[in-house]
Parts: sequence; C-alpha cells; structure tokens
Amino acid sequence: MKAINTIIGAYQRHSFDDVNAFSMVKRDTAIPTGHDLLVHIAAVSVNPVDVGVYAGIRRPRATPKILGWDAVGTVVAVGEQVSLFNVGQRVFYAGDFRRDGSDQTFQLVDERIVGHAPEEFADEELAGLPLTSLTAYEALFEQMHLSIADIKHNRQRTLLIINGAGGVGSIATQLANHAGLRVIATASNPQSIAWAKQHGAGLVVNHHQDLVKQVHALGIKNVDYILGLSKLDEHFNEMATLIRPSGIIVSITENRHPIDLKKLTKKRATFAWEWMYSKSYYQTDDMITQHEILDQIGQLLQAKVIVPTTTKVFNGLNPESLRQAFKLVAGGHMIGKVVIKAE
Amino acid sequence: MKAINTIIGAYQRHSFDDVNAFSMVKRDTAIPTGHDLLVHIAAVSVNPVDVGVYAGIRRPRATPKILGWDAVGTVVAVGEQVSLFNVGQRVFYAGDFRRDGSDQTFQLVDERIVGHAPEEFADEELAGLPLTSLTAYEALFEQMHLSIADIKHNRQRTLLIINGAGGVGSIATQLANHAGLRVIATASNPQSIAWAKQHGAGLVVNHHQDLVKQVHALGIKNVDYILGLSKLDEHFNEMATLIRPSGIIVSITENRHPIDLKKLTKKRATFAWEWMYSKSYYQTDDMITQHEILDQIGQLLQAKVIVPTTTKVFNGLNPESLRQAFKLVAGGHMIGKVVIKAE
Repeated sequence: MKAINTIIGAYQRHSFDDVNAFSMVKRDTAIPTGHDLLVHIAAVSVNPVDVGVYAGIRRPRATPKILGWDAVGTVVAVGEQVSLFNVGQRVFYAGDFRRDGSDQTFQLVDERIVGHAPEEFADEELAGLPLTSLTAYEALFEQMHLSIADIKHNRQRTLLIINGAGGVGSIATQLANHAGLRVIATASNPQSIAWAKQHGAGLVVNHHQDLVKQVHALGIKNVDYILGLSKLDEHFNEMATLIRPSGIIVSITENRHPIDLKKLTKKRATFAWEWMYSKSYYQTDDMITQHEILDQIGQLLQAKVIVPTTTKVFNGLNPESLRQAFKLVAGGHMIGKVVIKAE
Repeated sequence: MKAINTIIGAYQRHSFDDVNAFSMVKRDTAIPTGHDLLVHIAAVSVNPVDVGVYAGIRRPRATPKILGWDAVGTVVAVGEQVSLFNVGQRVFYAGDFRRDGSDQTFQLVDERIVGHAPEEFADEELAGLPLTSLTAYEALFEQMHLSIADIKHNRQRTLLIINGAGGVGSIATQLANHAGLRVIATASNPQSIAWAKQHGAGLVVNHHQDLVKQVHALGIKNVDYILGLSKLDEHFNEMATLIRPSGIIVSITENRHPIDLKKLTKKRATFAWEWMYSKSYYQTDDMITQHEILDQIGQLLQAKVIVPTTTKVFNGLNPESLRQAFKLVAGGHMIGKVVIKAE
C-alpha cells in the first residue's frame, strides 16, 4: 500500500461550534505487521466516548489525536500473523483505545477485535454497530453471566436498562429481548419511549422520575439484572433498592462521587463494570472473543434478530462533517447513531 | 415436645470478662409449623458474627438476644410442610439471621437451610462447619461463577484468599484446592501459615506486608479471583491492582470508608458481596440451595475432600462456656473454630 492516508485529528480542544475543532493531515500509509489489518475506511460512527476523549485534550498537542471507535471498511493489507481475514474482505470493528481511531482513510487494527461485515448491510448501517454491540453483548452475556440461548431461564428474569433508547441501550434491548428476558427500559420523551418499545422493551419507565415507584407500580418489586448506561451517581440508590437478592448490576458509566456499595451487602448483590475496550487495552488472552462477538452480531443482523440503529448520516469524512457529528452527539439528545460515510 | 427449652441469651452488652455477659432462661419449647424443624441442639460454634451482633446491643433488652449461627443436633418435631427431614435425623445448619440462634436447647429452623449431618463425624467437628462452608461455597461457586467440577478450567486460574487461615478461609482453601484452583492464601504467623498450607494453600503471603509486591515476587502479575475475608478498607487498593482484567472480587467484610470502585473500571472487574444469611433473610426462591450445599458438604466430608476445622471445644452450653468462647473469638487470634458441646 503506497496510498496516502488522510487523517482527521484534533490538536487542541475547541467548541464544536468552532470550524477549527478538527484538522486534516496527510501521512504515508502504515504497513501492517503481526496480527494487524490495514483497513480502508468506508464509514465511521461518533460515540459519546469520542466527545469525552476530545474534552480531555487539556493542552495543544504536537501530533493529532485521531478519534473514532466504530468503523466499517475493506482489508487492503495484512500482517504476517493474520489468519482470520484476507485482503479484499469487508470488516467492522470498534478498535483499540490506545491506538489511533477510525477517523482516517487507512487504519491499522488487530484482527482479533474485528468481525466480518455481513454483506447485506450498507456501510452506514454497520458503522454504528460495533461499539454498542460489543458493549451490550459483553454486559449481558459475560458480566451478567446470561446465556443468549437459555431462553427457558431468561424468560423468568427481568432486566432494567437505564437509558434504554441510547446507543448501547438500543442494542442491549434487542439482544435481551431475543434472549427471552423481560426488558424494562428507561426513556424520557415520546420519541425515545417509542424507540425503546420498537426495539423490544416490553415496559418503559421515565428516568427523570422516581424509578423505584414506577417499577413497583408495574407490579414488579425487584429486578434480576440492571444495566446502567447513564448517570450512575443519580441512579445508584434506586438500583440498590430495585435489584433482587443475588442480582447483578452492570454499569458502563462511572460514578463521580463515592457510591455506597454497602447498600448491596445484605442482598449479596454483584456490581460489575463493562468497558468494551478492556480486552484490547490489556491485550488479554481472550481478546479474540471480540472477533467472535462481532461475527455473531453479523449473523444476528442477517437473521433480523437485531436491526441497525443509524438515524443520521453525513457524507464525506472531513473536519466539517466530523465537527457537525460531534456537535450532535455532544448535545446528548440523539436517538440512534450518527454515522459519517467516507466519501 | 413438652420439654423445657433452656435459652442462653444476652440482655445487654458486657465485657466478655464479665460473668454477666450471658444469662440463662427457661421457656416452653415451641411447636414447629410450616417448613420448620425443631432441633435438639448437640453442639454449636461461635463465629465473629456472634461477637459483632453482641457488640451491637446498644441498650438493655426486655427479651434475651439468642445468638449462635452454627449448630448440629437431632430433629425432634417437624412442621406440617416439612418434606426433607424426619424426626430422629441428625442435622447441621447455620440458621436464619432474623430468628433466634442456636445457643439454646431446642431451636426452630427452616428445613430449606438445613443439611443432613454425615454420621461418621462427631458433633464438635460438624458444629464448626455450616456457616463457614456455606459462605465459602457460595462465594466460590455462586458469586465467582466457578464450577466445582470444571477442573480443566480451574487449573488455569489463581485465587487469592485474604485471611486464608480464618474460619471461612480454611474451608474456602480446601474447596478451591479440590476444584483445581491455584490458591494463594494470606496468613501472618508461623502457626497460621502452617495451617493454611495444611488446608491446601499452595502459596502463602503475609497480609501485614505489601500484598502486591509479595504476589509479584511469586512471579504472578494478576490473579483471576480474590476472596476478601478481612479488612476490606485496608486491602481494597491491593485487590484492585492484583485482580486481572475481567476478574472477580468477592468480599464478606464491609468497608467502613468509601472504596474507590473506579479503580476497577478499565479492567471491567466485578465486585460481589457474599452474605451467607441473604437467602433466608429475604426468603428467596432459591433458599433451598443452602440445604443442597450442606448436603454436598456432608458428602465432601465423607470423601475426605474437606476436613473439619474445630480446634477448641468447650463442654456444656451455659453462660460461662459461652462467655469464654466469645472471649476467644473476640480476641481475633483463633486458628480454626471454637465449638461448645451442649452437654
């Protein structure tokens, strides 16, 4: 590969109203080694994590910070240890938090965290899926120790998803519903309530009101599992009241203030974090499970068990479309995913 | 049953040097109903929880607080719904935190938290086992989601037990060793180090010194599971450093100060409480699992997989022996269990 790689990165933090929020640079394209694939990016998505990392740029950088952890593209070269993919194959993945992101023309990514893109789906549909799918899948089927196939068990269990209409919530709702769980999703306006129901939430409550009272009003005293996707500080005490004895709480958002874990002692409840980047961050032995999960997500898409959640598409991966996409996500009112097609 | 029930209880808190620490009262024996068994107590054990509950008596009580959550005895009457036991059978159990304890002649206990006492073992051997066995078993095989039979998986996993020579630690070490796990136990003096090794700890480190440095010095960077049985505040940061990505920490002791759970986020680690009383406290649907666990413990005793841990026996369940036993346990230097035989 001798093509030139166009990088869209940030040298310093700006307001997303500032046209200088992102810059474009050209570089020689890297040569993949080891387990790396070189992927020609076809589309990317913007997630809240991008906005968070951008906000974390405290001083001007000498090299651009390349964001983007959701991509679909085509393999154009492979490292000498690659065994899962061939040149020419279409792939989708979230990527590695420690490395450059997907907001560039050619990206290096370890094959063990990459899935085969199901061919029936368009780039703009697939680009919005890896990060949310990996997070939702790992939360339900690893951290909660649920089995996707154990419908008999799952049918007797209730899952509360806090922020059920968000990016991760939309996939978690679909996966949990498919696995047989009764899903209570939280949402707060007519559009997000309709979205949550459309994706399989049997019951919806409002996270701006008292969750305990609302769940009890449904005739449900305790829930077996809680997936916390937003504002842990605000909801922790409600979670502690609602979780059943021996229940499992999984959160993807961190607390800003100490949370009183002792509220869970008598119930011997479990609190687990989900961070989709963990396996690649620590280069764990089971990193390849992300390859397997994404391949399974591809099959679930083909089987129409889950549907893509892209609702907004920009054309052209450049500083201006990136800025607009970030501004939308930072606004916090998106339903579904924002995607940018490369061309 | 028209026998008189002799109750040894506490009306107010005293020093364990005070002969008035406990009082003896006689009452009519209760008649069992529902799932209750009436058990003629043969021996009891004293655990740290007894000392804690005693210390919690803040003002004089009108009725005695009957402690004791470890007993072996014989069923002398049964409620109308009892189906697991018959009159005359020997049983062992920890009991229900909300009800009167075992420091009496006749105790009511729900059959669903009672096991069949293996006949080859003496009362003083069995009385020390239920609370520690239930705690250790639930911690390993429920909260850590390990399987006792999956030796192949377990052989590749390491478990750190903080306070490995204590009551729960001694059983947890034996069960984990049997299940194939590599066990690192903490202990702090020659006697407790020898005890831990004798019960199956392959490696021992000292919990009064830096656990991270000591574990790393063994050539072990991370452990897969940590069972915290003492001083959570003191050891939490060490646990967070030592646990591997996706690892599971289970604690039976509560923190007194806020612990920084965010130290586990990047590793997506799990923190779970174990409280052996939880199932009966909340009368959960799976309460009967404690009956099953105790029966399994009986079989593991018969198979010599685990050995009793009683090291001190008092004769005669009366205020004076109870006071002496409590004083020993409160001292915090016991290795193995303190048991009181009823007669």
